[in-house]
Amino acid sequence: MKKLTVLGVTGSIGTQTVDVVLHHQDQFEIVAMSAGHNINKLEEIMAKLPVEHICVLEEKDQAYLEKKYPDRHFYCGQEGMIAIATLKEADIVLNAVVGFAGLLPTIQAIESHKDIAIANKETLVVAGHIIMPLAKKNGIKLLPVDSEHSAIFQSLQGAHHDEIRKILLTCSGGSFRDYSFEDLKDVTVAQALNHPNWSMGAKITIDSATLFNKGLEVIEAHWLFDVDYDQIEVLIHPESVLHSAIEYVDGAVIGQMGTPDMRLPIQYALTYPDRLPIGDSHPFDLTALASLHFTKPDTIRFPALKLAIQAGKTGGSMPCVLNAANEVANKAFRDGKIRFLDIYRLVEEAMKQHQPIENPTLDELLEIDQKTRTFVMQKV
Amino acid sequence: MKKLTVLGVTGSIGTQTVDVVLHHQDQFEIVAMSAGHNINKLEEIMAKLPVEHICVLEEKDQAYLEKKYPDRHFYCGQEGMIAIATLKEADIVLNAVVGFAGLLPTIQAIESHKDIAIANKETLVVAGHIIMPLAKKNGIKLLPVDSEHSAIFQSLQGAHHDEIRKILLTCSGGSFRDYSFEDLKDVTVAQALNHPNWSMGAKITIDSATLFNKGLEVIEAHWLFDVDYDQIEVLIHPESVLHSAIEYVDGAVIGQMGTPDMRLPIQYALTYPDRLPIGDSHPFDLTALASLHFTKPDTIRFPALKLAIQAGKTGGSMPCVLNAANEVANKAFRDGKIRFLDIYRLVEEAMKQHQPIENPTLDELLEIDQKTRTFVMQKV
Repeated sequence: MKKLTVLGVTGSIGTQTVDVVLHHQDQFEIVAMSAGHNINKLEEIMAKLPVEHICVLEEKDQAYLEKKYPDRHFYCGQEGMIAIATLKEADIVLNAVVGFAGLLPTIQAIESHKDIAIANKETLVVAGHIIMPLAKKNGIKLLPVDSEHSAIFQSLQGAHHDEIRKILLTCSGGSFRDYSFEDLKDVTVAQALNHPNWSMGAKITIDSATLFNKGLEVIEAHWLFDVDYDQIEVLIHPESVLHSAIEYVDGAVIGQMGTPDMRLPIQYALTYPDRLPIGDSHPFDLTALASLHFTKPDTIRFPALKLAIQAGKTGGSMPCVLNAANEVANKAFRDGKIRFLDIYRLVEEAMKQHQPIENPTLDELLEIDQKTRTFVMQKV
Repeated sequence: MKKLTVLGVTGSIGTQTVDVVLHHQDQFEIVAMSAGHNINKLEEIMAKLPVEHICVLEEKDQAYLEKKYPDRHFYCGQEGMIAIATLKEADIVLNAVVGFAGLLPTIQAIESHKDIAIANKETLVVAGHIIMPLAKKNGIKLLPVDSEHSAIFQSLQGAHHDEIRKILLTCSGGSFRDYSFEDLKDVTVAQALNHPNWSMGAKITIDSATLFNKGLEVIEAHWLFDVDYDQIEVLIHPESVLHSAIEYVDGAVIGQMGTPDMRLPIQYALTYPDRLPIGDSHPFDLTALASLHFTKPDTIRFPALKLAIQAGKTGGSMPCVLNAANEVANKAFRDGKIRFLDIYRLVEEAMKQHQPIENPTLDELLEIDQKTRTFVMQKV
């Protein structure tokens, strides 16, 4: 029986994790979970699973829940999130918090020797240079949940690191794959949220439309799989059937295919190195697909990839700036304060005004994150 | 340094094995090799590599070579082939002999504790029930060289057997993929030899056109990977980019892609579990492909698959009959004695007149093979 803490349980990844656990209650138990503001959803999950330790963002929600469920333990805020991420009885922490907020609980969980199933890519984007050595030092497993990184991880089983020639990171192309640069000027939030293949949360769906999601994933892959940026190739693959692949030195390309169903990478992170059936899954049928296509990304229309690789190659504090600027600009677009193409402009401006420092400490990162947010907020 | 015996060195697989060895002379040495009638090709290879032990089919060729190359050792016929397959200094025997003739040397090599790189699929088709336990008993590795089985083998690394839901065995569809049943009546040998994707020997190219090659591969996969026939699904995939794949219980499909270049599976069988670069290989570029297609095979137009699966499921001596009948009919078609569709008819008739026996011994197989050949020869 694996005991899990799920951070961000009411989100898209969180609820699918609950689904995986419900289908395999003999294998997994959620001992702790955190939610943000969606208390209705949290109570729905509480009705299905007897989770004992529960963290919410607001004190008023904690007070409401403590009264209604006197037999469970409630926590609140960042401190509470760290408490449940380091809970003695948890074996593994699935971190599905969105954005920079996922960083501190991950560090604390690693220091408490928990394995990490990581859906929060920002943690590695911002602090890969801190997280990876820390994971190694504490002898814990860092298991990818992003479907692409899970595909890479699955395709790497049994291989040696020095046999990797290239990582082929696939990308649906997002909601605006076939839009011209002119069309992109006037796209709406509703259009951007209409992702062709994956059902995901709002922030990541916008990131998919801008391609910043793929940019963040390139940086994530750099850290997770210890490869140079020049060894990572992004491929636009509209059908989202090949979830990513490895090209080996002998020319063999090993990749993972399947229905776009996030429960598969979530479950593999929890069952690794074993596999279990997925409850109610749609069988994958290659013959039901008309055909599969692969093209190179257009970095003129979608400059996010170029910016992310530039931030990654610069390294140090620059990915932190890229991420903070993108988080703020993404939110501003969703709130109707800026237009789609402004997201790129703001991220680029934030990167231009930043003097990168090498090997920033956690405190320095927290400060740079705040400064960048302030810088971008003043511009929206 | 791995020391190889290559059986069938002048054929398509054999010469590509020589190419692999020439590119990695610090890793591999061919200590022995066998050829059939192509003595010119054999002498070309002898000029490139100082192979000491050499077997040919005919005594007159042996005499000619002994005179010309007094510093090398020559052998002749089946006895000679067994001598070099069991040579003390060889670590691994790559068996690229075509047809039933590959069986006896494989058995002898396994009993001499050589690892086997198996390109001779007929060995497993006819005698999988003898070969597999023998390999296990002698603690040797049986490494697939067929591109499809190599893809499956590569995709299985790090997995557990009970996690396999299905093997997806891909198939180019051969030279007549898009021909109607009517068209097939009058196809010529030259048309059949014009394979769209792979450059191979004549027998296997005809087997690709009839789909008997895929039928034999289904039986081979059954033995190599210990799966039921119902767990093997053949997919027509005209581009030959996905070389085969595994569908796991959680719905993940792991497959191997790449340029159709037989040197890759040959080399992987020799380097397993490691990988080495391939000399002068064409880099694989998914974006250079227009698109990939997958369809279900048409067993009405191409009854070979149905016959092979029927033989496999019947088991015992039936696959031996299927194989012998196909070898004779394939040759008769190439010799212009029968028409294309007669190949199916003759195989089916041979299977119908045979009373299958369970667990045939090697001697029984040799007898059934002979009897079937005689039966079919009388009909062409």
